[in-house]
Amino acid sequence: MINNIVKKQEKYKENTKNRGRILITCEDRPGIVAAVSEFLTDHEANIIDSSQYSTNPEGGKFFMRIEFECPGLQDRKAQLERDFKAIATNFQMEWKLFFVSELKRAAIFVSKELHCLRELLLEWENGDLVAEIPLVISNHSDAKEYVESFGIPFVHIPASKENRAQAEQQQLQLLDEYNIDFVVLARYMQILTPNFVSSFNQNIINIHHSFLPAFVGAKPYDRAFERGVKLIGATSHYVTNDLDEGPIIEQDIKRVNHRDQVEDLKKNGRIVERSVLVRAVKWHNEDRIIVHGNKTVVF
Amino acid sequence: MINNIVKKQEKYKENTKNRGRILITCEDRPGIVAAVSEFLTDHEANIIDSSQYSTNPEGGKFFMRIEFECPGLQDRKAQLERDFKAIATNFQMEWKLFFVSELKRAAIFVSKELHCLRELLLEWENGDLVAEIPLVISNHSDAKEYVESFGIPFVHIPASKENRAQAEQQQLQLLDEYNIDFVVLARYMQILTPNFVSSFNQNIINIHHSFLPAFVGAKPYDRAFERGVKLIGATSHYVTNDLDEGPIIEQDIKRVNHRDQVEDLKKNGRIVERSVLVRAVKWHNEDRIIVHGNKTVVF
Amino acid sequence: MINNIVKKQEKYKENTKNRGRILITCEDRPGIVAAVSEFLTDHEANIIDSSQYSTNPEGGKFFMRIEFECPGLQDRKAQLERDFKAIATNFQMEWKLFFVSELKRAAIFVSKELHCLRELLLEWENGDLVAEIPLVISNHSDAKEYVESFGIPFVHIPASKENRAQAEQQQLQLLDEYNIDFVVLARYMQILTPNFVSSFNQNIINIHHSFLPAFVGAKPYDRAFERGVKLIGATSHYVTNDLDEGPIIEQDIKRVNHRDQVEDLKKNGRIVERSVLVRAVKWHNEDRIIVHGNKTVVF
Amino acid sequence: MINNIVKKQEKYKENTKNRGRILITCEDRPGIVAAVSEFLTDHEANIIDSSQYSTNPEGGKFFMRIEFECPGLQDRKAQLERDFKAIATNFQMEWKLFFVSELKRAAIFVSKELHCLRELLLEWENGDLVAEIPLVISNHSDAKEYVESFGIPFVHIPASKENRAQAEQQQLQLLDEYNIDFVVLARYMQILTPNFVSSFNQNIINIHHSFLPAFVGAKPYDRAFERGVKLIGATSHYVTNDLDEGPIIEQDIKRVNHRDQVEDLKKNGRIVERSVLVRAVKWHNEDRIIVHGNKTVVF
Repeated sequence: MINNIVKKQEKYKENTKNRGRILITCEDRPGIVAAVSEFLTDHEANIIDSSQYSTNPEGGKFFMRIEFECPGLQDRKAQLERDFKAIATNFQMEWKLFFVSELKRAAIFVSKELHCLRELLLEWENGDLVAEIPLVISNHSDAKEYVESFGIPFVHIPASKENRAQAEQQQLQLLDEYNIDFVVLARYMQILTPNFVSSFNQNIINIHHSFLPAFVGAKPYDRAFERGVKLIGATSHYVTNDLDEGPIIEQDIKRVNHRDQVEDLKKNGRIVERSVLVRAVKWHNEDRIIVHGNKTVVF
Repeated sequence: MINNIVKKQEKYKENTKNRGRILITCEDRPGIVAAVSEFLTDHEANIIDSSQYSTNPEGGKFFMRIEFECPGLQDRKAQLERDFKAIATNFQMEWKLFFVSELKRAAIFVSKELHCLRELLLEWENGDLVAEIPLVISNHSDAKEYVESFGIPFVHIPASKENRAQAEQQQLQLLDEYNIDFVVLARYMQILTPNFVSSFNQNIINIHHSFLPAFVGAKPYDRAFERGVKLIGATSHYVTNDLDEGPIIEQDIKRVNHRDQVEDLKKNGRIVERSVLVRAVKWHNEDRIIVHGNKTVVF
Repeated sequence: MINNIVKKQEKYKENTKNRGRILITCEDRPGIVAAVSEFLTDHEANIIDSSQYSTNPEGGKFFMRIEFECPGLQDRKAQLERDFKAIATNFQMEWKLFFVSELKRAAIFVSKELHCLRELLLEWENGDLVAEIPLVISNHSDAKEYVESFGIPFVHIPASKENRAQAEQQQLQLLDEYNIDFVVLARYMQILTPNFVSSFNQNIINIHHSFLPAFVGAKPYDRAFERGVKLIGATSHYVTNDLDEGPIIEQDIKRVNHRDQVEDLKKNGRIVERSVLVRAVKWHNEDRIIVHGNKTVVF
Repeated sequence: MINNIVKKQEKYKENTKNRGRILITCEDRPGIVAAVSEFLTDHEANIIDSSQYSTNPEGGKFFMRIEFECPGLQDRKAQLERDFKAIATNFQMEWKLFFVSELKRAAIFVSKELHCLRELLLEWENGDLVAEIPLVISNHSDAKEYVESFGIPFVHIPASKENRAQAEQQQLQLLDEYNIDFVVLARYMQILTPNFVSSFNQNIINIHHSFLPAFVGAKPYDRAFERGVKLIGATSHYVTNDLDEGPIIEQDIKRVNHRDQVEDLKKNGRIVERSVLVRAVKWHNEDRIIVHGNKTVVF
């Protein structure tokens, strides 16, 4: 099983060894696209895909994602980075340069509901979510056997209001040790402290089991049942210090009807939760998302 | 144009002259379905479609919609009604018997945004919404020419907080005069008083331009934009005295993205508003909805 | 892992020990519903859910699914079956009586693409697909380790045009030995002979990776790419002797665009294939499907 | 009514007076984006939106749509066009430059089914389809009164296999006279000759009432009913000389079930046909579509 995944990932890395991506945020002004595309031409890179968005063409914010193929990229990484800095400085850009064959490393946090974890591992096994998943952390032990059957280390860290600081310290140490790039809260039912959130700023992806901003907080399916809604939803968002208020990445819904009791809403909800979370994780993993204030630009 | 609609409706009435429907609400207990189906057999009626729902098979509420074909129905209406009363009394039912060829009469209320009105008239012209629409009332005159081009009387009744009571009195008089069965608020931007609501209890259908309970109240698209949602929605519900809190009939959504400004959300919203409202109106018109507390059973 | 599933299933069986279902097909004539509902009342059974459909109220085919709760059902199974026979004979019904706590037993057939198998096992683990899965058969060995990690026996039976008869004989023997009720072809890339099909008539569920009847046969994604479609689809159907022509159970689609190459269509297709197949399997498992000619009635 | 539309369009033209769009097709090679973005910078134009696609970054076809805001555009049109020619020649581009405030002129062809025509006029009235519609042509007179109520000239040209050449000559003369840019076949049930098609090459948009390539040809709903599909669809495509085989622009579907007879499929189909056609028409009208072989790139 693990061998298959490793084999698929090795093939992916070989196929993308010349592939890079740049994400840019800056004030909009004429000449940005020209400067970036000239830079790429000068480095013999061919643009594969390019998206841009401006909040307001006259003096707004400018966002760009550009994917390129650059022959011999592996030997030119440092040079590319150095040369782009000049442009970035000129336009006062916030920017990131990604090399596609350097897979991101994700840690999954989970509690007792395992459907989102299972979906992530299903897509990972399929080779449709191409990231490294070197660590699963849980405040319960339910997922242990399942996670370990994939050869992934599982760490049980009991967590509650009382021991939050201590548990998080242990978690952060593990994330550091395993060199984790981003954290997926796959129905992890604990609140994170500002300290934890700031350590992984814009790199913690949560799934909330409602169509936000409806049903912020606890027990959204019970409240959806009470209200008699005809659609239930799920929302994936970056975690901030305001509960369920972080930048929304993706949402989706599923039709329900009067026959559906709370248990049925949960059952239908599991289907939509897992598909929404996995889409958000894939987009983050493919460098498609730029956070802007409390919103996301998803290219 | 009008001749065509009249012709289609006459054909529909002829085709459904033996068609009836019963809607039932009562306490669940064994024997209800048997009693109702025996009643129909005794009257030589064949069941065409039948749906039932019980909130809890052990001592909950029971709901049923049954559609039947009864030869010679036009001459047996009174007798059917009389005979069913015995069963209804026995099971302490709330019930309604409808004769499908007796078309319902709907009045449409509209303000300045005309897309929902247009959709209703489009489906009405198509012959896909088979009801009589003898009256449109508006607090503005924008729709006058359009409505009258269909041969439908248009009455302009200016309405505001200040003259609400007086305007409603005039409206209620017209609804009475035109023998109206139900009212459709097709983006009618005025609040109705409890007096008006109780006069047409469970017969006023509104469209709210958000995915309730998100964005209750004014300017939902502006607030959806602020929050950065990835889906916008619309909700059709029966009007009660709690603003945007009435029993939900139908909801739907449309995908949007970071490029969509408030104006784009409104533009996309118009598409989903009109399809949601017209579905709710059709279901009401086909006696598919039973209100139960603050929820709807939609058969 | 397995213990959890067993525990969930035991709880389910306990909760449904008084629950039964009847599926009926017969010529439509007055009195069927009355007779069936009287039968249930006479046996102190309460109707939980009931659906019916008639192809033509005047002399068409009549279909019914009725779910009921009958106190002490476990001790009254034989009697119920005996007593219903009288009604069935009277109306010349084809019928089946199911006891919900007697879980169906499914065998999964798979080849090298494992996403559909994974989805089925994911929903099974969740407790959302409540069936026994005592056997997986494959013409390749790729799934062996994965299947066995769930404690499910995996049998590798090489199959090709050449050894089809012999391989099927071995398969049929296993299906018999494991007392299998229905077979799920979860991307099993072999054609079945009429002998095999007739042995499990209307109990073999396949997933075809296109929106049938578009792209019948091999390589549907390649052909979808060639045609430049904007939606790809998947279709789950009962297997008959006409390739991809059996009664359709469920279909769904996913939006694609000009950027999507054949590989992207396949990747998107995997998502829709697995959700369509699992819905079809659940409906079959819940006795919701009646086959009528080359179509399905799905209640 | 007409005054309102004119007012909305005047406002739109004023708002977009500096807005231009370029559509490009050429062989992919490094430097294209750089050249185009430099050209725009040199003319003080700011890029508002830009999309590109390459069939294969190594030697494939390159497609681009770029929308820009250029101060004083009205006085610089000729100069812009002249200066861009140099770049176009250098890269051997096929290209078009559009000035957004110059509204396109569409003619609608219709037969007896009016729902698509009604949807187009509904969106046009809303101000959500911003084009001029100076002409409706029909082989029947059913739509006459409706079309003229919008102040749009309606021309009845009887058409059949027998008089096709003659009817088309009259149609082409009218299209020329009214200076028509593109033709919408809104359920126009006549086949066009190669002569007509080549006169409006890639500017004739049809709606087919099935999910192509399923049910090519006549009576798709009857055949969908026969096959027992669970989804019906509609497809909008450019007209070529191969019936229902032209480049697909947009498709969508709607769920149906076993209860739906052919008439119900048609009724549901009308909803999806009109939404699919209007999306295709809007995209064409906004210069979002590039035809490439028998496919479309939709930006």
